[in-house]
Amino acid sequence: MNEEDERASPDGLSHLDARGAARMVDVGSKDVTDREARASGRIRMEPATMTVLLGGSAPKGDVLAVARIAGIQAAKKTPDLIPLCHVLPLTGCEVAFRPEPETSTLHVEATVRCKGRTGVEMEALVAVSTACLTVYDMLKAIDRGMTIEDVRLVSKSGGKSGPYARDAG
Amino acid sequence: MNEEDERASPDGLSHLDARGAARMVDVGSKDVTDREARASGRIRMEPATMTVLLGGSAPKGDVLAVARIAGIQAAKKTPDLIPLCHVLPLTGCEVAFRPEPETSTLHVEATVRCKGRTGVEMEALVAVSTACLTVYDMLKAIDRGMTIEDVRLVSKSGGKSGPYARDAG
Amino acid sequence: MNEEDERASPDGLSHLDARGAARMVDVGSKDVTDREARASGRIRMEPATMTVLLGGSAPKGDVLAVARIAGIQAAKKTPDLIPLCHVLPLTGCEVAFRPEPETSTLHVEATVRCKGRTGVEMEALVAVSTACLTVYDMLKAIDRGMTIEDVRLVSKSGGKSGPYARDAG
Amino acid sequence: MNEEDERASPDGLSHLDARGAARMVDVGSKDVTDREARASGRIRMEPATMTVLLGGSAPKGDVLAVARIAGIQAAKKTPDLIPLCHVLPLTGCEVAFRPEPETSTLHVEATVRCKGRTGVEMEALVAVSTACLTVYDMLKAIDRGMTIEDVRLVSKSGGKSGPYARDAG
Amino acid sequence: MNEEDERASPDGLSHLDARGAARMVDVGSKDVTDREARASGRIRMEPATMTVLLGGSAPKGDVLAVARIAGIQAAKKTPDLIPLCHVLPLTGCEVAFRPEPETSTLHVEATVRCKGRTGVEMEALVAVSTACLTVYDMLKAIDRGMTIEDVRLVSKSGGKSGPYARDAG
Amino acid sequence: MNEEDERASPDGLSHLDARGAARMVDVGSKDVTDREARASGRIRMEPATMTVLLGGSAPKGDVLAVARIAGIQAAKKTPDLIPLCHVLPLTGCEVAFRPEPETSTLHVEATVRCKGRTGVEMEALVAVSTACLTVYDMLKAIDRGMTIEDVRLVSKSGGKSGPYARDAG
Repeated sequence: MNEEDERASPDGLSHLDARGAARMVDVGSKDVTDREARASGRIRMEPATMTVLLGGSAPKGDVLAVARIAGIQAAKKTPDLIPLCHVLPLTGCEVAFRPEPETSTLHVEATVRCKGRTGVEMEALVAVSTACLTVYDMLKAIDRGMTIEDVRLVSKSGGKSGPYARDAG
Repeated sequence: MNEEDERASPDGLSHLDARGAARMVDVGSKDVTDREARASGRIRMEPATMTVLLGGSAPKGDVLAVARIAGIQAAKKTPDLIPLCHVLPLTGCEVAFRPEPETSTLHVEATVRCKGRTGVEMEALVAVSTACLTVYDMLKAIDRGMTIEDVRLVSKSGGKSGPYARDAG
Repeated sequence: MNEEDERASPDGLSHLDARGAARMVDVGSKDVTDREARASGRIRMEPATMTVLLGGSAPKGDVLAVARIAGIQAAKKTPDLIPLCHVLPLTGCEVAFRPEPETSTLHVEATVRCKGRTGVEMEALVAVSTACLTVYDMLKAIDRGMTIEDVRLVSKSGGKSGPYARDAG
Repeated sequence: MNEEDERASPDGLSHLDARGAARMVDVGSKDVTDREARASGRIRMEPATMTVLLGGSAPKGDVLAVARIAGIQAAKKTPDLIPLCHVLPLTGCEVAFRPEPETSTLHVEATVRCKGRTGVEMEALVAVSTACLTVYDMLKAIDRGMTIEDVRLVSKSGGKSGPYARDAG
Repeated sequence: MNEEDERASPDGLSHLDARGAARMVDVGSKDVTDREARASGRIRMEPATMTVLLGGSAPKGDVLAVARIAGIQAAKKTPDLIPLCHVLPLTGCEVAFRPEPETSTLHVEATVRCKGRTGVEMEALVAVSTACLTVYDMLKAIDRGMTIEDVRLVSKSGGKSGPYARDAG
Repeated sequence: MNEEDERASPDGLSHLDARGAARMVDVGSKDVTDREARASGRIRMEPATMTVLLGGSAPKGDVLAVARIAGIQAAKKTPDLIPLCHVLPLTGCEVAFRPEPETSTLHVEATVRCKGRTGVEMEALVAVSTACLTVYDMLKAIDRGMTIEDVRLVSKSGGKSGPYARDAG
């Protein structure tokens, strides 16, 4: 369950010690392995907003280019945003978009890789969230009602706890 | 529609200029007014995870205390995360949690205030997203399937475009 | 006592709300005034270390120049370091050193100014602490036993709570 | 004495070169070893402030929870705060508090671990200092006279220079 | 000459005090005025690199979109990069590119605006430099010999020292 | 040509994928080797400015000490400034200045070292650029016309693509 530390809280929460105090859990005894995590989310908008995103005079490319960069940069900032995350030397990060015009939804997926002692799930989730938030920022002048939906981990591999795949879950 | 700049893209996206290039739009001619924005989101988990969060040996307080601090700090980092956001002197930020045990859902709401030339919607949305991501991080050792749902703007006030309330449409 | 908010904790701690939860307290109703804060601290070292600092082949200037810059830069990072601090537009920051060879002590004082809605005590204290830590870092190869002592607020002015001077009690 | 570089200043200060100019000293030829550093400090307050911290209506937990998080996050920011520090992949960080009511003093201790080519003394000292500063910030509305005392290295291990323990000093 | 402070160094360098020590000069007595600064620079490359930038299978847009975002974000980070710069609430920032195929040169210009007590020259220069560096990073896999040339201030307005225009110099 | 990834753009730009979208390219399969990069640049000023820098009442040392620290710190911030750069554990960084009074030019050179999976060219270029920008900031009160010239890579070693030296073509 909790692969990291026997001194963890009895509930198995590695970020809390046995007395319930927060800590950056010691991962020094874990192996360096190839780690990969994939996360997804989506942002739902008005049909007219999707039309602007896809084919309006404002080129779709630039909105998504900004959001992609924001997602990649945010992945690198994860230990600064999520208080108990370790600083990890990411080896790669990609952010992909897939518009679904019939539902006025933009799907976002991020893949992060690292050779490290702990996983990169949070980095992938942070990349997806920040990319969605940036799309919101770029389009909010015409649609304040957009909603960010279903940000979640799709899969992870590497590390002692073994692979995880949501659908296989 | 777009209160900020007549040189904006024809689609009304203030963060793009007439040629579609990204920019930090000039807000120098806008008035300094009292701005407030409220955003919400939630994180859905397994019932057993909710039990740990609410009453396990790991005190509920510390998980939420860490997430609350993370949300407040992230609000201050918004211009670093969202590329075209202005640096705004926030005057206040609060992050509140409401667990709903019957649905194994934790509701998160953030309120941000500022006296400035542009709104603080993004700061509120960033605070909510980061608080949810931190809850995920604190609990992920026992539940990797948690999902962050429905991150959205609840209301805003201040500025030329007037108040917005989601429910009032 | 607590000038900021009647919804504060009954104990008068403005960074906690009435239920004890942390928040960035709303200062929007406070006036913008000229604020100044002065903080001091000192770092005690071995006599031989003081000799190197003052007159060795390594010029004293560069150790203190690095520490001065570190202190000034840290003052600007205060809202990133101290979770509930507001982002304030500092108008000035100075860091001064006074070596006292007879006690092998280096005195450090920082003065920070701002026109804002809340004070800059934390900025001055952060500047002093970081300058001391940087002196430690620069000299630790020859003296690991150095101690940072008596980091405290010397005085502050501006704001509704009026001036404070430590010696005046 | 100075394990790092023969081109260092004659005084043995590794952060200065032979001409006295500051540099981030090259540690590329040093071995990767398990490093640990422990630092301590304390903050002295009025007895009434200690009473609030320990048992007032404002729960002790949240003040210390915020300070603990601030200390852990600051450890990760060390290379950004202390100009010549290397970026190190910390494997763990813990911050512990021990109130001493009879002297109205809160003791703070931080332990930092890393597998790296240079030590984590500065990370531990930064964590302690920032935790103390955050306690000051949380309580300053009722006690501006608090003093941060005796921030120092307790022990270190790992690396060519061997273990250090202050008391064994 | 030096509008800011009579206690400046006799040479008129406002960032140094009368004894030559660095400081963040106090601008509290200066007026808040509309400030604008424009800076330019260029990056010279191989003709084949320019061909890729302009019309290769890799769309020109994405290289420049990344560089534009990097420049805008860097302008916001100026007080973190340039040690004695004040934190200023920028009201706008634009980065423009003009390729000159005949000389295999990409011209870069940044315009920054602010309502503040000191100018935004450094913000404009930082934006141009960072945009050029990002173009270098994006294209360096095919051309390591690119050179960044003539980064300089084009014009500034606002503040007591009056407007400056390089050509009117 | 492009050592990193066969899925790169047909033009050989590793930071773009086959469809031209930006990404942080995966370097996980590359070896960890000793990497070094050296970059140079210069800043040209008025003769009177050079006189102040070299021998005025304002000590030359402090202007250059600030610029040196700024350059070293900026090298560490490279992944935050240049969007697609990896976070690399730098093992060393030096910044050197050489004034050339006859041409009123200050030459700047930075050397950066790392044991990593990708090179440190950008870190060296960022250090040089930021040191030059800081010199501009320190002296701009007396000379707004200074120009930063010829920022470029001098040499690199380590990695599969082998050594590069500018003069050797």
